[in-house]
Amino acid sequence: MPAARSTLYLEDLSVGDRFVSTEHPLDAPQIVAFAQQFDPQIFHLDAVLAQDTFFHGLAASGWHTAALTMKLLVASLPLAGGLIGAGGELSWPQPTRPGDILHVESEIIEITRSKSKPDRGIVRVLVLTRNQHGEILQRLSPTLIVPCRPLEP
Amino acid sequence: MPAARSTLYLEDLSVGDRFVSTEHPLDAPQIVAFAQQFDPQIFHLDAVLAQDTFFHGLAASGWHTAALTMKLLVASLPLAGGLIGAGGELSWPQPTRPGDILHVESEIIEITRSKSKPDRGIVRVLVLTRNQHGEILQRLSPTLIVPCRPLEP
Repeated sequence: MPAARSTLYLEDLSVGDRFVSTEHPLDAPQIVAFAQQFDPQIFHLDAVLAQDTFFHGLAASGWHTAALTMKLLVASLPLAGGLIGAGGELSWPQPTRPGDILHVESEIIEITRSKSKPDRGIVRVLVLTRNQHGEILQRLSPTLIVPCRPLEP
Repeated sequence: MPAARSTLYLEDLSVGDRFVSTEHPLDAPQIVAFAQQFDPQIFHLDAVLAQDTFFHGLAASGWHTAALTMKLLVASLPLAGGLIGAGGELSWPQPTRPGDILHVESEIIEITRSKSKPDRGIVRVLVLTRNQHGEILQRLSPTLIVPCRPLEP
């Protein structure tokens, strides 16, 4: 596993490399504040009224889980040039709840050097967001653009 | 196109139904505020320093575009029981910039009645987030869980 603080270029990455983030404790006020701004639905806003919904209680917006995942990822996957994603597949196997403590586990699953642009490559990562019980809250497989190490002058 | 204000059950939806949201004008302070909380990378935080990055200027976090898309979607796709997504495929064909005015166009592309749970179905939607020039900023194809109309007592 590469040292967490270094800046990693395409040449520094190998399939199977893993990165584990710090933790983010989530509570009801955070869930409600995010929902008020971006996903104002009753099951993200009101713990009592949420009982009578699909979620049977307050649940975080999936986009809140995604945004917190990005926060944890930025601090744990130190790619040169930053984390630049073109997209990916996203799923939420179970709701994120107040009291969940999130962390993110990332694994490099594919590295493809660009043919048209020799200064970069495309890296596919499996990013799992788990709570303190190890339950998977989000599964994301983004493709990231990663620069090659610059040639010495 | 179904009336925008009604609550739509599975039976009310047809493949090809389209929904268009209102607009959200995005500016640099919003971009920076979201990035400080969820995606603290220089190209989302500082318009001057962002010039020397992949984005050649300030760009919104993709997760900010996703969150704003959800806000516009919640107000424009009035499904019974709310918008409950299991996940989907997500891509950002081009960066979202300060000054972009976002809107969301949704189209029902697949409706599958659940065999195991006869009170609901799975609906796949194509959700395009565009700016005022019609450029696609985000393409999302979520699967949503939609309840059937309850039987009259």
